[in-house]
Amino acid sequence: MQTIRALPSRTLFFSSCCRDSTRLARLQHFRPRYFNTANNPTYAAQFKARTKLQGKMASTATTLKGQPLDRALLDQTLRRRLFYTPAFEIYNGVAGLYDYGPPGCALQANIIDVWRKHFVIEEDMLEVDCTVLTPDEVLKTSGHVEKFADWMCKDPKNGEIMRADHFVEDILEARLAGDKQARGQKVEEEAEGEADKKKKKKSKGKAEAVKLEDAVVKEYEEILAQIDNYNGEQLGELIKKHDLKNPATGVQPSPPIPFNLMFQTAIGPSGHLHGYLRPETAQGQFLNFAKLLEFNQNNMPFASASIGRSYRNEISPRAGLLRVREFLMAEVEHFVDPEGGKKHERFHEVEDVELVLLDRHVQLSGKTDLTKMTIGDAVKNKVVDNETLGYFLARIFLFMKKIGVDESKMRFRQHMANEMAHYAADCWDCELLTSAGWIECVGCADRSAYDLSVHAKKTGAPLYVRERLDEPKIIEEFEVEIDKKQFGPRFKKDAKAVQTALEETSQEERESYAKSLAENGKVTLKVAGVGDGNVEVSSDLVKIERKKRTVNIREYTPNVIEPSFGIGRILYSLIEHNYWTRASDGGDEARSVLSFPPTVAPTKVLLVPLSTNAAFKPFITQISRKLRQLGVSSKVDASSATIGKRYSRNDELGTPLGVTIDFQTVKDGTLTLRDRDSMVQVRAEEDKILDAIKAIVDGTKTWADVENELPKFVGQELEVEVR
Amino acid sequence: MQTIRALPSRTLFFSSCCRDSTRLARLQHFRPRYFNTANNPTYAAQFKARTKLQGKMASTATTLKGQPLDRALLDQTLRRRLFYTPAFEIYNGVAGLYDYGPPGCALQANIIDVWRKHFVIEEDMLEVDCTVLTPDEVLKTSGHVEKFADWMCKDPKNGEIMRADHFVEDILEARLAGDKQARGQKVEEEAEGEADKKKKKKSKGKAEAVKLEDAVVKEYEEILAQIDNYNGEQLGELIKKHDLKNPATGVQPSPPIPFNLMFQTAIGPSGHLHGYLRPETAQGQFLNFAKLLEFNQNNMPFASASIGRSYRNEISPRAGLLRVREFLMAEVEHFVDPEGGKKHERFHEVEDVELVLLDRHVQLSGKTDLTKMTIGDAVKNKVVDNETLGYFLARIFLFMKKIGVDESKMRFRQHMANEMAHYAADCWDCELLTSAGWIECVGCADRSAYDLSVHAKKTGAPLYVRERLDEPKIIEEFEVEIDKKQFGPRFKKDAKAVQTALEETSQEERESYAKSLAENGKVTLKVAGVGDGNVEVSSDLVKIERKKRTVNIREYTPNVIEPSFGIGRILYSLIEHNYWTRASDGGDEARSVLSFPPTVAPTKVLLVPLSTNAAFKPFITQISRKLRQLGVSSKVDASSATIGKRYSRNDELGTPLGVTIDFQTVKDGTLTLRDRDSMVQVRAEEDKILDAIKAIVDGTKTWADVENELPKFVGQELEVEVR
Repeated sequence: MQTIRALPSRTLFFSSCCRDSTRLARLQHFRPRYFNTANNPTYAAQFKARTKLQGKMASTATTLKGQPLDRALLDQTLRRRLFYTPAFEIYNGVAGLYDYGPPGCALQANIIDVWRKHFVIEEDMLEVDCTVLTPDEVLKTSGHVEKFADWMCKDPKNGEIMRADHFVEDILEARLAGDKQARGQKVEEEAEGEADKKKKKKSKGKAEAVKLEDAVVKEYEEILAQIDNYNGEQLGELIKKHDLKNPATGVQPSPPIPFNLMFQTAIGPSGHLHGYLRPETAQGQFLNFAKLLEFNQNNMPFASASIGRSYRNEISPRAGLLRVREFLMAEVEHFVDPEGGKKHERFHEVEDVELVLLDRHVQLSGKTDLTKMTIGDAVKNKVVDNETLGYFLARIFLFMKKIGVDESKMRFRQHMANEMAHYAADCWDCELLTSAGWIECVGCADRSAYDLSVHAKKTGAPLYVRERLDEPKIIEEFEVEIDKKQFGPRFKKDAKAVQTALEETSQEERESYAKSLAENGKVTLKVAGVGDGNVEVSSDLVKIERKKRTVNIREYTPNVIEPSFGIGRILYSLIEHNYWTRASDGGDEARSVLSFPPTVAPTKVLLVPLSTNAAFKPFITQISRKLRQLGVSSKVDASSATIGKRYSRNDELGTPLGVTIDFQTVKDGTLTLRDRDSMVQVRAEEDKILDAIKAIVDGTKTWADVENELPKFVGQELEVEVR
Repeated sequence: MQTIRALPSRTLFFSSCCRDSTRLARLQHFRPRYFNTANNPTYAAQFKARTKLQGKMASTATTLKGQPLDRALLDQTLRRRLFYTPAFEIYNGVAGLYDYGPPGCALQANIIDVWRKHFVIEEDMLEVDCTVLTPDEVLKTSGHVEKFADWMCKDPKNGEIMRADHFVEDILEARLAGDKQARGQKVEEEAEGEADKKKKKKSKGKAEAVKLEDAVVKEYEEILAQIDNYNGEQLGELIKKHDLKNPATGVQPSPPIPFNLMFQTAIGPSGHLHGYLRPETAQGQFLNFAKLLEFNQNNMPFASASIGRSYRNEISPRAGLLRVREFLMAEVEHFVDPEGGKKHERFHEVEDVELVLLDRHVQLSGKTDLTKMTIGDAVKNKVVDNETLGYFLARIFLFMKKIGVDESKMRFRQHMANEMAHYAADCWDCELLTSAGWIECVGCADRSAYDLSVHAKKTGAPLYVRERLDEPKIIEEFEVEIDKKQFGPRFKKDAKAVQTALEETSQEERESYAKSLAENGKVTLKVAGVGDGNVEVSSDLVKIERKKRTVNIREYTPNVIEPSFGIGRILYSLIEHNYWTRASDGGDEARSVLSFPPTVAPTKVLLVPLSTNAAFKPFITQISRKLRQLGVSSKVDASSATIGKRYSRNDELGTPLGVTIDFQTVKDGTLTLRDRDSMVQVRAEEDKILDAIKAIVDGTKTWADVENELPKFVGQELEVEVR
């Protein structure tokens, strides 16, 4: 992974790095896998197990209080309170594009704020803000132009375009449902939102009660268990073999072709400079590596970080915020010396953090048993590859807890060996359990030296670290020495290509070439594009000899540990994890509550004057101002609705605290403070109430503390409950 | 601007709104004007005056301390400290795209943070976060697809594409410079950065010493004075008339054609849904108006706000951060009832704020005299159209001051009457003086009901306010009543068009039609696209009568006051306004200092151990942690450079405070605190130093306060100055 030498030669250097030009594995964090594992029975078993687990969990999704999660009711609440809304809805919308309304926008900003403090500030990371527009050359080098694609097929009759795996999945699921109907079994419906239900009606999956052979049922189930793992050709074969037809037209769709998921555009007026909207924020960080290293005064290790939008032109977006075309990412690129086991200076701070792991060995055995283990043990036992990767897994866990993710609905799943790109050392996803199953919300990969290497190789930029050695080292290696004076005249236009081919040889190749030169006075090289591809070089033109040299500088390409966060997915999962309902006084209607921790709650305090009486106004103005000075966001609800209704509305918005201004306030300046979750109120003088608010918002006190310290208030309790 | 009626009919309603389909005027905030004012001598004078002023100012740009601004030195500093850097530089870069490095990124985040507190939180605005991808239908309605363009021409010989106004400008400026040379006059060079200089070398403007006729000089000067105001045809005429040739080829470029400045892409796999990257954040806010109004419990007035990227495919970006293709905007859309003079509830809070104004009357008289006036007087004297607009101008001023803009380099320039779209009531730019002249950094326009009206008309969405009247009103108006049963059979496929034409008539038209129906038993309507465009409707099909009705609900389309901030431009101007140099001890080298106020400074405190001695490390760790708990960002510089060098480095980064840990610290726990601007140091116990830091960062104390309270420290002063 790294070389030690005195005379840096780019070509020589890169020959020791991996050459793979795809980032496919990491891109997978936010998309299904389409590696060809379909013919691998172990994989089939493993994915089947995963899918079954997902299905089971999905149908038993629960709220914060363990109630069955009513996704339709939650969706209603989120829409009514404008957490997010389909973009361009008055123009009939565009699939996969959502706008965040005020509470969603504030929730997102608060999550980002915690993220920045937890990662960037705490770890002194170098935050950068790079452009979304990216010229195609960059994304060719990274492998996205060639490989960042999904399989799509087209209905030849009505022109409808479908994502091939979704199409196969829908038709087979419909057939299985029809079979169950025919057998008189109950068809289990997955918990899903209204939007999804609407879509389902229009989708391919219309179940007709037709009984299938047992063997066919088994085959379909096996296909579905590994639907994410077929390539285009295989999906095409499935369509033919099982005669899968589009119900809308009764015909089979065309064979799947790859569809690149990047949005393309032209930069500048000529139209010749093709560009894309970045599919991830990472590339900007890699390209600026040399500048960042210098900014960091050449100190290693260090991390850069970036928060920004990325874009993926999904063929058929679905599942609300979970698969969208424009989304916010937060990514860290931690650059580390590959030598010395990738230790992390602060690992000891997190080694006792316990994580729920689903490692690749368990998955390989077809099981889904989760193991709880400290990250210290996980690294010690080589379950997790190295300290730095382990450190970030623990930090991700702590971040998730801080923002209010339900710890019992979080796990870390390791990528299978061939689920990762070959250059990746290890990769774990932080998955959150929602009504749509286990959702990959953060990917954390050790990407080795891949990214920096490909860009350096393409551009010649010095994307490496030069480190003065404490003691000089003696290195003995085969070196290539070319007689440039003769090389040009002999090979003419091919001289450069032949030279490069020679320089890119490995030590092993050089050893054999040296032998050939000594024995035959010449060597035959493979040089693509020159003559018939075989080029003879005689010993008067090149010397290949084993030489010793003293090395004072070590030069290496850092490895990259990359935690990559999909903020929209985290935000949505967080909403589900903090959602619950309580009965209204009548008991016939469930009232939604979002119990966000104060840190991320869109608004911290609701100010409620008892009525529209003008006497309350000066108090409202004054308390608003004081809260603002304390840096605590508040909202006033001075509408004519009952206090109970106003509090209910804000329980749906996740506002943790409420302050009531009533006639008692006018008399003696006391206020009541209400806790969203327990609905308990206390009453005290303004200063004490403000202190309590500040302490709760800062996390130095809990509601229980405040309830112990301040007199309980019951006078308005009844009133609060009247709707 | 608004109607009162009982039976809302969309068509009827919108007929009272302005129909103009362009937002050209507002788009101008960030681009040159190309309204046709070239033939208006008053305008010529006015623009000439402006240009001259700009030129003069540019060549005398000063630093914070009044020194001549050395733009090259500043550029060097910004590059060295990685404030920003050309994006994709290792791939040779893409014009108009920049990445922000760590200090630029932090500065930007801090400006945004102040903006959010100053506007969104202080005014309880509804912040939304909308998508950048926008389907073309939306931007067709807004007028961008048709009108958002610059004029470009092409060299027929080498294919080079140029922005037509820039081309004319470059050639004429070169000829004038050549004339000056020939006359033996000094050619004044504008202050400019290295990047610009490099570009200049490649640009069209190669001066050859050729003397021109006096009349020609005058003509060229007049053209340049109003170069922003020619349309494509006029620019083409100038090229022909003055035989302007591309020096690279010696031929005239082709006639200018419009080039739309939006980046286009295709959304979804079919390729049929065209979309653009939004050129501004405003549209998302307009489209969500109805939802936002409901979220605001139907209370008016209210404002929405949005912070996000926008995109403009500039033909030839130049001037660094001032004209880029991808940029951050912050926009407010304040929705206000057009009735009652657009009063603002909190206007009294700002009425004494004094602004430097350049109103349109002064500009019309060809002058550039700036007037200092309270915003209270400006509104009273009708210099500024209304209270709400005035309120925001004052708030913009206060925001600029808060982040550290130099008040003496800020002015508000009013748009000329025909510089605005006809629907706009008034528009002012907040301009900041930089080495590139006066730069439009914020636009603040009263856009009337235009935006909501066009989208409502196109989609039928209820983008209006319904307000219950305190007392019912009696309205007497001509109403159109159509006999629908007969209408269909009579007009068949044209029935809808004829009905719409009838409903869209004004009260005046209805009066004359009523007369015609009464006198002739029929009326002839203009209906485009139906027959020969004239349609006869007889009195059995339609009744037009004056009727009284009682109205309980008032329905109106709110007007929009729109402050629109270009964050990159503000950030760059802020850097120039806070930049100065001080002599090093040798006096031969200028050291750059960026005196950002603590609020926006990228880092607040630098922690400097005297040397790499291990004894200092625990102190560094502890102070870092305590500062983090106080919410104060700090950086450690434990490099082996001298303390003086380390402080110099951080003066360039704009870090306001420095803490030194030395052997005295190890003995007695005291620390020194250094002020970036005065380089004065104080020494005290850790707690006192931390309190002082917190107070300075929060703005409750100034350095002068701290210097008075804590003992001055001189011991290290010498050491600090040693480099």
